Amino acid sequence: MMVSDGFGPASQTYARSYYQYVHSNPKSPKKEYVSPLDKILVGSSRTKSNSSLITDSAAGATAFSCSLKTYNGAVGVDPTGTPCGTILEAAKALGMLTGMVVTSRITDATPASFSSHVPHREMESEIAEQQIGDYVLGRQVDLMMGGGRCFFLPNTTKGSCRKDDRDLIKESQDNFDWKHVMLNRQEFLALDEEDEGIPLPAMGLFNQGHLSFEVDRDKSARGSEPSLKEMTKAALKSLKGNAGPNQGFFLLIEGSRIDLAAHNNDPVAHVHEILQYHEAVAVVRAFVANNPDTLLISTSDHETGGFTLGFQDDPNVYPEYIWKPEVIQAANASTEVLADKLVSYTGRGRDRRQFVRTVILDRGLGIKDPTDEELTFLADPASSHQDILIFLGRAISRRAYLGWTTIGHTGVDVNLYAEGDNVAVNELRGNHENTEIGAAMSKFLNVDLDYITRRLEKDVDRWFKPMNSFWRNQFGGRSSKHEMTGH
Amino acid sequence: MMVSDGFGPASQTYARSYYQYVHSNPKSPKKEYVSPLDKILVGSSRTKSNSSLITDSAAGATAFSCSLKTYNGAVGVDPTGTPCGTILEAAKALGMLTGMVVTSRITDATPASFSSHVPHREMESEIAEQQIGDYVLGRQVDLMMGGGRCFFLPNTTKGSCRKDDRDLIKESQDNFDWKHVMLNRQEFLALDEEDEGIPLPAMGLFNQGHLSFEVDRDKSARGSEPSLKEMTKAALKSLKGNAGPNQGFFLLIEGSRIDLAAHNNDPVAHVHEILQYHEAVAVVRAFVANNPDTLLISTSDHETGGFTLGFQDDPNVYPEYIWKPEVIQAANASTEVLADKLVSYTGRGRDRRQFVRTVILDRGLGIKDPTDEELTFLADPASSHQDILIFLGRAISRRAYLGWTTIGHTGVDVNLYAEGDNVAVNELRGNHENTEIGAAMSKFLNVDLDYITRRLEKDVDRWFKPMNSFWRNQFGGRSSKHEMTGH
Repeated sequence: MMVSDGFGPASQTYARSYYQYVHSNPKSPKKEYVSPLDKILVGSSRTKSNSSLITDSAAGATAFSCSLKTYNGAVGVDPTGTPCGTILEAAKALGMLTGMVVTSRITDATPASFSSHVPHREMESEIAEQQIGDYVLGRQVDLMMGGGRCFFLPNTTKGSCRKDDRDLIKESQDNFDWKHVMLNRQEFLALDEEDEGIPLPAMGLFNQGHLSFEVDRDKSARGSEPSLKEMTKAALKSLKGNAGPNQGFFLLIEGSRIDLAAHNNDPVAHVHEILQYHEAVAVVRAFVANNPDTLLISTSDHETGGFTLGFQDDPNVYPEYIWKPEVIQAANASTEVLADKLVSYTGRGRDRRQFVRTVILDRGLGIKDPTDEELTFLADPASSHQDILIFLGRAISRRAYLGWTTIGHTGVDVNLYAEGDNVAVNELRGNHENTEIGAAMSKFLNVDLDYITRRLEKDVDRWFKPMNSFWRNQFGGRSSKHEMTGH
Repeated sequence: MMVSDGFGPASQTYARSYYQYVHSNPKSPKKEYVSPLDKILVGSSRTKSNSSLITDSAAGATAFSCSLKTYNGAVGVDPTGTPCGTILEAAKALGMLTGMVVTSRITDATPASFSSHVPHREMESEIAEQQIGDYVLGRQVDLMMGGGRCFFLPNTTKGSCRKDDRDLIKESQDNFDWKHVMLNRQEFLALDEEDEGIPLPAMGLFNQGHLSFEVDRDKSARGSEPSLKEMTKAALKSLKGNAGPNQGFFLLIEGSRIDLAAHNNDPVAHVHEILQYHEAVAVVRAFVANNPDTLLISTSDHETGGFTLGFQDDPNVYPEYIWKPEVIQAANASTEVLADKLVSYTGRGRDRRQFVRTVILDRGLGIKDPTDEELTFLADPASSHQDILIFLGRAISRRAYLGWTTIGHTGVDVNLYAEGDNVAVNELRGNHENTEIGAAMSKFLNVDLDYITRRLEKDVDRWFKPMNSFWRNQFGGRSSKHEMTGH
């Protein structure tokens, strides 16, 4: 199950055309380049949640994992707030190996909705506890890789995001059998070298928070984060290598930060996240080709950004029918990294203006024609990080004729891709509710999610209800807007 | 072949959710309503033209009709400006009957690209001449219905758009065999009553320009325009009724003004055009069910408006994940009709402000909370028709949380729908270049477009080249921006 978070139809067209443009060569123009996804398009998915016409990632992922519609913010729980059995847990109950590979915090909404049950996505401390195995079902995950180390470290440690002093890395090894905790790419590469791949159970937590955007990731030998493609390859090798005969596995792979780039209205980070996701898809497709008893599904939970390939906001100037990939090609960094850089720059006045012009706009975004207004706004030390972030995204988007209508999600149907088992693929053709994707996985694996839901009821008063009451008392059932940002 | 002009993925989600909302009933909630299109989704189409990553409707339609990529503005001609055989002409050469049903001018880019060959879409006088039969192939169309009467009337007649005094209605009957020219819905209904439907050849020109938006159309017995659904039903009856055994027919049906509503950034007209198109699709699907040797294809030439279901332009306020169909439901007219009404209103000062408040905003758009700024802008007699048009569209879109990024086209892949002949439908599954849709039709009908192209070469010096030179001299190969508006 591959999830391209926050990736709508326009984003796919965008990434394909961008790749075409960048790789076209007058001598052999790849005019008809199609991406690894285009070759396996089977239909589309309707994304609305139980509480709104526009979903968040938690309700979106729970539709896949539990095959039910729930409220925005819900992680592995139904609309009444009751834990629901997930496809990952059901696969585990069948005796399969299970894995999750993401580029966000591993505790973020999508992986959380496959591997934990909390009333609201913000409860990432509790999510991490369940992910290592500390809940009624015990350890369900054999391999997980991504970011989010801060939720596994005690609050006595610098950079911890936990509200208590539990050391989940230690607990995972002492109480839940985890053999390996990889903290950087070097450790990852060393374990991946084993014949059967990374020995299980193992986790890789390669960043305190989310992993870097692909465009910013340190790709040198010293870089501490593997790419999504590297993690995908390693996960397939390990899950296949460690599985007994006929044991099989379930693997969730998420291109998590496609979404976060779109929340930032950053077309540069966005396209590089998508192209990296395409590479991961190619890896999985090659695996499926060699393992015909497998099924690959790739879809999105929702669109993000109201992203469009055409922008013109003056009603009195008739738009040209173009957009300009060359503008995006000239950029070298995400707006997030550039906004960080600018906010932490201490120079003032003319120095600051020069820094904006050369380091941020020219070298960072490839913008060589800044307007006075742009320089003035960006060089103003009073401009906030968020202001700068969105301003930079719009500065480059406008020049490329790319449009955004929101820094949140939108409701458009998303593309659905599948390959492998013929029966399952044929059932996925056409337009579906997102819950039907969960149902298709259950049917393919021949598992009963209700059975898991009943197992989750055991001791629910002890393990789940106190958490539920806490959340309802704390937030009155509503999330804080701040915490929702970027999901 | 059904074309939903300017209808992207977000527009389909929008219309479905709107219909669901309007028809939901607490006693029997149609939560899982899916539209007639959703049931036959097979894939998507890549829309770029030969000259740009964003196509216009002429190049988009020529990709379907001639199965080739050409430059924006090209009507039935290839990138070198040479006439290319169309699927309609090829069907005619096979001895089939041919028809076109549209809601724009019949001389507009989409129908023109199936039934004529001119270097640029603006040459609608020449397009009309070819459509009645005055070109090298003679009459190719047996039935055409839509708007655009002004291009068939001599410039000595009030409301004519022709540059000469040719009376094409008279010529069509005197020289090209047309039996009937219907000028209003009453004449249309009378002919449709015949057992075999409207006798052929026949044309219906129900408006000087485009037909009215469905939301504005006079639906009473006195109304002069049939609906797209009515025309579709009548066309199928007539083409089937007039065809001999094994003769068959080719029919183009276009929901033309889905596009024009999106150019106006008008979500009200847009959704009613789409729902009417859905009804036409239902009619065709019922026909296909009863005639299994037929093939239905429905797709768009491109997206228009950069339309999205989610709007939030303040980077410092985190968006709610909602959009509001109830805002759209409260509206009763297109912004085009309302802008016309306001521009022709002669009152000033307080009267004008009151007119804006009650007639335009409250009764027209269902807006009961106009801001002072809105009233002031709209009540200013200096505000132009175009300003008012777009302002009204954005006023209601903002309240419904709907976003637009342009008044032109965008490049996102569009949905592809098909039903009928199994082999053809299976070949259309997945993601395709728009030209492959033309190729699929040619293959299904077993026709050779090149054969038609060669026939078009005959006398090309006489019938085509002078027109080509005229256009190149006049416009230097570029269209005037004004004339491009709204396509």
